Amino acid sequence: MRARKKKWADSEILENEIIFSETKEDKNNWGHFFGNDKPIMLEIGCGMGNFIMEMAKRNRDINFIGLERVKMVIVAGARKVREWNESVKDIDALDNVRFVLGEAMTLEELFVENELSRIYINFCDPWMRKKKWAKRRLTHKNFLDIYKKLLNVQGELHLKTDSKELFEFSVNELIRCGWTIKNLTLDLHKSEWAESNVMTEYEKKFSEMGLAIYRLEAGVCREV
Amino acid sequence: MRARKKKWADSEILENEIIFSETKEDKNNWGHFFGNDKPIMLEIGCGMGNFIMEMAKRNRDINFIGLERVKMVIVAGARKVREWNESVKDIDALDNVRFVLGEAMTLEELFVENELSRIYINFCDPWMRKKKWAKRRLTHKNFLDIYKKLLNVQGELHLKTDSKELFEFSVNELIRCGWTIKNLTLDLHKSEWAESNVMTEYEKKFSEMGLAIYRLEAGVCREV
Repeated sequence: MRARKKKWADSEILENEIIFSETKEDKNNWGHFFGNDKPIMLEIGCGMGNFIMEMAKRNRDINFIGLERVKMVIVAGARKVREWNESVKDIDALDNVRFVLGEAMTLEELFVENELSRIYINFCDPWMRKKKWAKRRLTHKNFLDIYKKLLNVQGELHLKTDSKELFEFSVNELIRCGWTIKNLTLDLHKSEWAESNVMTEYEKKFSEMGLAIYRLEAGVCREV
Repeated sequence: MRARKKKWADSEILENEIIFSETKEDKNNWGHFFGNDKPIMLEIGCGMGNFIMEMAKRNRDINFIGLERVKMVIVAGARKVREWNESVKDIDALDNVRFVLGEAMTLEELFVENELSRIYINFCDPWMRKKKWAKRRLTHKNFLDIYKKLLNVQGELHLKTDSKELFEFSVNELIRCGWTIKNLTLDLHKSEWAESNVMTEYEKKFSEMGLAIYRLEAGVCREV
């Protein structure tokens, strides 16, 4: 059953204009692919894409890319975009969303230096239970150094998490690596940033459970 | 009754070698007063002085000054030091603790530039209920600018609070004002800094209630 599902997902990925996989060409050339040179913002671990779809609707002058490593999930996300586009007028259709099947570890194969304007990390796995797992955290120095390369000079990393431990780790790691933090909140939904916030699937659940959401923005360059 | 207490406190302050008040001279000359040039660390709002007394016991090579604006409280603190000194051998007596009757607003009258090595702010009033109270918060830019003047180049501000809102405000304000944050924790007593932590009176109560304690260190200069 699982294999069959995978095969079906494979073919849907190959035929899909919205999804990129490692078998497709034209990576590293996103401007050409989108047909414009609008800023590119990436979400690492986009799930079914609710967040970037909503962001893409609100920000037509920005291209959004969702990175996701689970095939079935990314296919579901791409279907949502297609269904949206079929249900609305041409002018409302989303031409500024793409999905990439891949992992954060291979980001450098997908983008060139300074290509990204922003990276979103929303509710990633905290990997907090063991110290030796620190390197798996998406805000570990090893990842931050990759993001720093791929983000342009004004580039920013936006992090949301329900994990107090991951947030604490991330703040210290970001500062240690020379990033500039701003607009930090320890309770997003009660903060001044609540109104402009686009919720992810997980975030809605966590929020309904009454859990606080931690959020920050971090810039590549230090502002004085 | 209140007036009588105050009078009694007044005379105890005037006669007390450990307390400075505005009526005494020799402010701005702490090295001379302590009789040495050891680094000076200040706690703003020291209460009855439990924290700085314990810090002074553990760090004999540092001079500690506790700033407190409530007379009765500062007198109680000074008594504790005296009682300690009378109950121990000379070698264990504390000669590195002083109290100052005063407020954070008047710090510049008490210290000269670069005179302080560290400032501790422990569980200060968050003043969070109204936005217009922001200027009263001890981590407001107006105060941070004073601390920056009085701290030396390696100087640090150490903040502890049980107020999530004040902590959030403080992190953003510190970064905005060019301070470098490090060793931030959102749950001090469960963190790697728990072991070396000296608890204040309030902190013990909060901790027993199961509340998380927020803590950070902030440096005057940015380290890259």
